Amino acid sequence: MNENASKSTLQRLPFYLDVLKKRQANGEEFVSSSIIAKELNLNDVQVRKDLASASKLGGRPKVGYEIQELIDDIQSFIGCDRIDKAVLVGVGSLGKALLGYKGFLDYGLEIIEAFDSHSSIIGDEIKGILVSPMEDLAESIKENGVKIGIITVPASVAQEVADKLIEAGCKAIWNFAPTKINVPEDIIVQNENMASSLAVLSRHLNSKN
Amino acid sequence: MNENASKSTLQRLPFYLDVLKKRQANGEEFVSSSIIAKELNLNDVQVRKDLASASKLGGRPKVGYEIQELIDDIQSFIGCDRIDKAVLVGVGSLGKALLGYKGFLDYGLEIIEAFDSHSSIIGDEIKGILVSPMEDLAESIKENGVKIGIITVPASVAQEVADKLIEAGCKAIWNFAPTKINVPEDIIVQNENMASSLAVLSRHLNSKN
Repeated sequence: MNENASKSTLQRLPFYLDVLKKRQANGEEFVSSSIIAKELNLNDVQVRKDLASASKLGGRPKVGYEIQELIDDIQSFIGCDRIDKAVLVGVGSLGKALLGYKGFLDYGLEIIEAFDSHSSIIGDEIKGILVSPMEDLAESIKENGVKIGIITVPASVAQEVADKLIEAGCKAIWNFAPTKINVPEDIIVQNENMASSLAVLSRHLNSKN
Repeated sequence: MNENASKSTLQRLPFYLDVLKKRQANGEEFVSSSIIAKELNLNDVQVRKDLASASKLGGRPKVGYEIQELIDDIQSFIGCDRIDKAVLVGVGSLGKALLGYKGFLDYGLEIIEAFDSHSSIIGDEIKGILVSPMEDLAESIKENGVKIGIITVPASVAQEVADKLIEAGCKAIWNFAPTKINVPEDIIVQNENMASSLAVLSRHLNSKN
């Protein structure tokens, strides 16, 4: 096991879980690194290295990895077998969309409260999640031990919101605003750049026309 | 201009647009590459190279780039000044969330119809977008000239859906299913790996505890 698994290794781990769970659903008990590598278009050496970061299990020659144990090890390594509490700031259409998504719990994320600065929406419940005023943000984070802040405000106020989340105690920021935010070294930011993805798709179509 | 701008250049272009629009909103007319680089924590040379991919404008010494012209050039290069039609397949909670998001139009994406295999939801409208049966998918893509397919089905059926989208004429796939999909060379896939992002955040919190 390696406490310092690279970000790209971490990003691949959910895909290994996906392959392992599919194989298991088909009744298989063992899988080799070369089969996983082939399914994901990855290099065999890379797969073995990634798996060694997350699990002390070795793949046995001619048999491979024991699927259930490997699933348990990866989930425990990532921490997705444990629930992290999150708050979401910015209840516009994207914020509402994410509040309505029930799949995050499968990955260990629970959004416990949402915040917005517009009085018209404060006090509403979106899929059972209360929208509170920004003034209550810091207290909620501290009282509930919230570690993840989800940012779905416009780009122009994303930095300000990130600063507030971090000051109140969040250690991880999931940023959906299409802008760069700066954070202290011990804080992790994961950017979800839907604008960047759309730029890649749109340019591809544009250059074909 | 470079017809073969790299994917990472394309992914950065929306961030340049963000900086340019903020500066413009502040009443500025010109901006230097070094200011853009500083705001985005990028290298000055990288910024100038990226901008040269999208625009034939040069930054003038001591003055910089003319903001409005650079915005126009980048938008036209990406193609986000033009609307691309999309269909969404898989109207579960993530699919509904995306159908409810009104921000895609700003980036040139219009979802015109949704598809699902569950009869209980077929015929419903989600934020004005009709949910149709899978049998109608190919005809809708062909008739409406749809170029982008958005996949929000479970991982286990994502490949099958991608194959149908491509066979009907989609040239770009926006994949939100946490699995790898294989496509022909002339098709572009952009993966939105929320599971990967959550793995990075969760591991970071996990390793601190």
